[in-house]
Amino acid sequence: MLEKIGSPEDLKALDPGKYQELAAEIRQFLLEKVSDHGGHLASNLGVVELTMALHLALDLPEDKIVWDVGHQAYTHKLLTGRREGFDSLREYGGLSGFPKRKESDCDCFDTGHSSTSISAGLGLVEARDKLGDSYTVVSVIGDGALSGGMAYEALNNASRLKSNFIIVLNDNHMSISESTGGFSRYLSGIRLGSGYNNLKRDVRRGLSKVPGVGESLVENISQAKMALKQIVMVPGMFFENLDITYVGPIDGYNIPQMVRIFEEAKKIDRPVLLHVKTKKGKGYEPAERHPARYHGVAPFDVATGKNRAMAASPSYTDAFSHVLCRLAERDERIVAVTAAMPEGTGLKRFNSLYPDRFYDVGIAEEHAVTFAAGMAAGGLKPVVAVYSTFLQRAYDQILHDVCLQKLPVVFVLDRAGLVGSDGETHHGIFDLSYLGTIPGMTVFAPKNKYELRDGLKFGLACGAPFAIRYPRGAAWAGLKEYKTPVEMGKSEVIFRGSQIALLAVGSMVETALSVYEGLKTVGISATLVNVRFVKPMDTELFSKLAEDHSLFVTMEENVVTGGFGERLCGWFGEQPVRAEVLKAAIPDTFVEQGGTEVLKKKLGLSAGAVLERTLKAWREGCKEECNRAENGRKQNNRKENKA
Amino acid sequence: MLEKIGSPEDLKALDPGKYQELAAEIRQFLLEKVSDHGGHLASNLGVVELTMALHLALDLPEDKIVWDVGHQAYTHKLLTGRREGFDSLREYGGLSGFPKRKESDCDCFDTGHSSTSISAGLGLVEARDKLGDSYTVVSVIGDGALSGGMAYEALNNASRLKSNFIIVLNDNHMSISESTGGFSRYLSGIRLGSGYNNLKRDVRRGLSKVPGVGESLVENISQAKMALKQIVMVPGMFFENLDITYVGPIDGYNIPQMVRIFEEAKKIDRPVLLHVKTKKGKGYEPAERHPARYHGVAPFDVATGKNRAMAASPSYTDAFSHVLCRLAERDERIVAVTAAMPEGTGLKRFNSLYPDRFYDVGIAEEHAVTFAAGMAAGGLKPVVAVYSTFLQRAYDQILHDVCLQKLPVVFVLDRAGLVGSDGETHHGIFDLSYLGTIPGMTVFAPKNKYELRDGLKFGLACGAPFAIRYPRGAAWAGLKEYKTPVEMGKSEVIFRGSQIALLAVGSMVETALSVYEGLKTVGISATLVNVRFVKPMDTELFSKLAEDHSLFVTMEENVVTGGFGERLCGWFGEQPVRAEVLKAAIPDTFVEQGGTEVLKKKLGLSAGAVLERTLKAWREGCKEECNRAENGRKQNNRKENKA
Repeated sequence: MLEKIGSPEDLKALDPGKYQELAAEIRQFLLEKVSDHGGHLASNLGVVELTMALHLALDLPEDKIVWDVGHQAYTHKLLTGRREGFDSLREYGGLSGFPKRKESDCDCFDTGHSSTSISAGLGLVEARDKLGDSYTVVSVIGDGALSGGMAYEALNNASRLKSNFIIVLNDNHMSISESTGGFSRYLSGIRLGSGYNNLKRDVRRGLSKVPGVGESLVENISQAKMALKQIVMVPGMFFENLDITYVGPIDGYNIPQMVRIFEEAKKIDRPVLLHVKTKKGKGYEPAERHPARYHGVAPFDVATGKNRAMAASPSYTDAFSHVLCRLAERDERIVAVTAAMPEGTGLKRFNSLYPDRFYDVGIAEEHAVTFAAGMAAGGLKPVVAVYSTFLQRAYDQILHDVCLQKLPVVFVLDRAGLVGSDGETHHGIFDLSYLGTIPGMTVFAPKNKYELRDGLKFGLACGAPFAIRYPRGAAWAGLKEYKTPVEMGKSEVIFRGSQIALLAVGSMVETALSVYEGLKTVGISATLVNVRFVKPMDTELFSKLAEDHSLFVTMEENVVTGGFGERLCGWFGEQPVRAEVLKAAIPDTFVEQGGTEVLKKKLGLSAGAVLERTLKAWREGCKEECNRAENGRKQNNRKENKA
Repeated sequence: MLEKIGSPEDLKALDPGKYQELAAEIRQFLLEKVSDHGGHLASNLGVVELTMALHLALDLPEDKIVWDVGHQAYTHKLLTGRREGFDSLREYGGLSGFPKRKESDCDCFDTGHSSTSISAGLGLVEARDKLGDSYTVVSVIGDGALSGGMAYEALNNASRLKSNFIIVLNDNHMSISESTGGFSRYLSGIRLGSGYNNLKRDVRRGLSKVPGVGESLVENISQAKMALKQIVMVPGMFFENLDITYVGPIDGYNIPQMVRIFEEAKKIDRPVLLHVKTKKGKGYEPAERHPARYHGVAPFDVATGKNRAMAASPSYTDAFSHVLCRLAERDERIVAVTAAMPEGTGLKRFNSLYPDRFYDVGIAEEHAVTFAAGMAAGGLKPVVAVYSTFLQRAYDQILHDVCLQKLPVVFVLDRAGLVGSDGETHHGIFDLSYLGTIPGMTVFAPKNKYELRDGLKFGLACGAPFAIRYPRGAAWAGLKEYKTPVEMGKSEVIFRGSQIALLAVGSMVETALSVYEGLKTVGISATLVNVRFVKPMDTELFSKLAEDHSLFVTMEENVVTGGFGERLCGWFGEQPVRAEVLKAAIPDTFVEQGGTEVLKKKLGLSAGAVLERTLKAWREGCKEECNRAENGRKQNNRKENKA
């Protein structure tokens, strides 16, 4: 039946009695495709019926759906004519795993990072009203994404709205922890601490004397636990103005009921929040049992649920996980913070070993950083482990709350550099730049897994803000024998040659090694430097190298803008010594999805591409050098004439 | 009496009967000092008694107070031995207007930006508990600061705490708008829209059929408006786990009562929120009547409340305000967004002219940006006006929600560059760097107020992400006659000379003009370029200039790291043409408070300092040039030998 559904119209033409059958087919399709290509599974299996109901009640592309985070939009893509695309799901040039405006006019807003959908949806609503349109805007947000501060900011602002805006809360009890869900728990009210009663009595006595504070308030406090719960909410100012109509909980698997509710919700002239209960992994037992494990998956065998690929070699994440636990054993002041990513960042093991020193703050990177700053100010040694791309959320907090006070917080940036099939929204290609702008920040990139250990150890000991970044995937174990002790701001010279200096950052040391070998074959004995410290830079070394190297090649998995290469150029700009600097970096563009090797080739970051550019620059440099010498003579003559 | 209070101990030794008298003296003292030096007035007058009560109930520096934003900490400074400091309040080298750890051990955490105190306080609490200490931690946060998402993230995380943490909500009904306050309004419940009843009935019918959804829930919806309010709060997950004990409202001017409540609150083994009602400007009538006007003030006459200085010449803010209103008159799609800064950003006038196209989202920069992205996706032309330093909060949203989708949002960054006496936390000296890292962003800096107009007009027409940044204070009107039409990525050549190219960004064009004149007097006819576009750069022009200029001097009120100069160097690094690049920029450090002219001198950004460095570099360059020519010959010989 699925192959006949090429558009939402086809879905609407379907006999409602067939909905369940179609849902089952969609689920089967998703299972097949995701098990084949990898991708987000559990979240997509959870919202098949919800998505169908939305498309039945709405008219896309006229109406708009903003999918928070966006990794749950597979059924939406299927229903909007992109079935064929799933054969190239998340591949280079293929169908994106996230909503993309450029992919379909049914995708109205691109997402990837969390908690943006209510803000964006509210913006669309205002645009609709101002421009005299009348389409419906729906933001679909998970309970996990609601822990992000900007979702709250948006709700707080939605309250003033006098026209329709539908927020679908896709509540799967999962994204943060099991404990956040549950209507009944909410209604059960607050259990008061023992100390409270004294305070309450005291306050009661006190308040009764204050003019304007009615006894009724005090009664509220005393009599009803419910009332207390309300009072708690008041001073926060959070919902004082929050005239958001609530409907729920709604069964996320009853399509006709959802459609009816959506239809009715469209008629309300105010924001309305529809609380839909779903289950991550719905319909595929392994995913239902282990939704976190089946959140984002590599290709796997549907029957067994097992990974198809051979056991991968240990990742940098694994290396970090082990090292941190070992260090934490020796130093009780080490604590770890993550933002809803205990598995992804490798902190799960730390949590199991040191549960009282582990903090998963939910999707709340801003809080994570300033919370860590507070802990550091109080004498602890916090390690904040967040993906490079998500730490962007906390740029101001890193600058203002950590670095301005020089607090010893260690930032661990996993997934730095190209991440592959998650694409544009997820590449960690800005961190060297944005961290680099911050005074007092140290930025370290290890060349291999052993250096990650040394760097982390050093970072925890240095007593100042420290960031360590490494890529997604298998940890390199090469150049194991090169283990110059880590020293603040000092790079590591792997091979000392002359003429060409290859300065490679972190993951690019492996690439640089190939370039080095390539140069050797054409008779150039280059210098290979493991940069290690992107900030502060080892300018002493670079000065020395400039004496007998006329070409520097910088290599980094980061945008060129504000990256290591550019900073090196900035330093060279004022030095008496000069060198040409060739920057192998990601150009000043967003990078699409695709295998990292494919992307590196396209971006000129593969060993072959860098080697080619290096040789070209070297040969041209030789020519230029002659010209410059010539010009130099001319210019000097001119200056002497003027002087 | 005040002169006898050198420490919190002195305060504690005071007869409680004297508290009021002391409070009055403190108020008088603050009025005198702030009217003399300028500073934050209304917020400080509001919390005199609250601060006294905190110091009476706590033992500083053992106990910790985290002041959110921090501009309300004057009384705290007074009571902790810094009375003398007020003679140099907010001056270069003088007492800071914000808490500073380096200033006193009674300041436990530096603040400046909003909404950080609960996160930081929670961090201190965790450190205390882990390290076996027993001090009390108090975070003092205003109702305005609570609209920031990270405050919510922090509250959401505080809920799991099993030990004492006091949050003082300093509720002055002011920071966002009058409408947010009011206990009674909260209790009055929700007025339902007319459409709601149908939906409710429908949902009721639907829900009754769903197993597991009790009729009692439906009854809750139907029977009590209060219940609805509760239900609204549940799905948000906001307070589901929020076991934060609430006490309030408390009279912020009854010291003995506050002390008693604080003492009791210290005994509770959980987070407790004390809702204290205060009044901005308390005790000084002009400030009570116009708290916003007396928020941050220049020196003024206490008797009349009037500004002491002569009417200042129009600021860039004024220029922006006028131009935007004029443009908005002609284009209804122009809307304006600000984050709790309608006065500061100059949008007040826009609001009065086009109230339905104006959005003050509260202290919520993240939402502001993504909300604007949504409006742009929906066909509007949003202008987001935020101070440069506060826009740091939305780095990820600018990158991920605006630029990735190339949405036409215009960012207006006021207070870019050095801001003066607010100091470290408020200088807008990172924007060229952080905006520069973002692909697809255009960064424009006008040389004078006329160009601000042209730039804004251009930005609104260009249909892509666009940022315009200008400094605090009086708008320069110089070089009025130079008005090359704005063209994407094109700089403006003011004077074409040779040898030295002065490339000045925005506010530095005025300085560059002096440097230009200075060079002229020593016989150097330089080129003066108004850079205009920091991104994209006018590389075509720079290529041409490199032909007959061997020294480029870049000038920008921004950190050198990732700034314009560095980017120019990065570009030069791969060009066949070369030039020495001298970067006049703020070094890679945080900059203290002080008059902007004083700071510019200290930082080497004054015309005199730049001129001196330029001449030095020029003279050394001449020498070097000779050496390089010599080296070039040697190197070429070497290369030829190797080849």
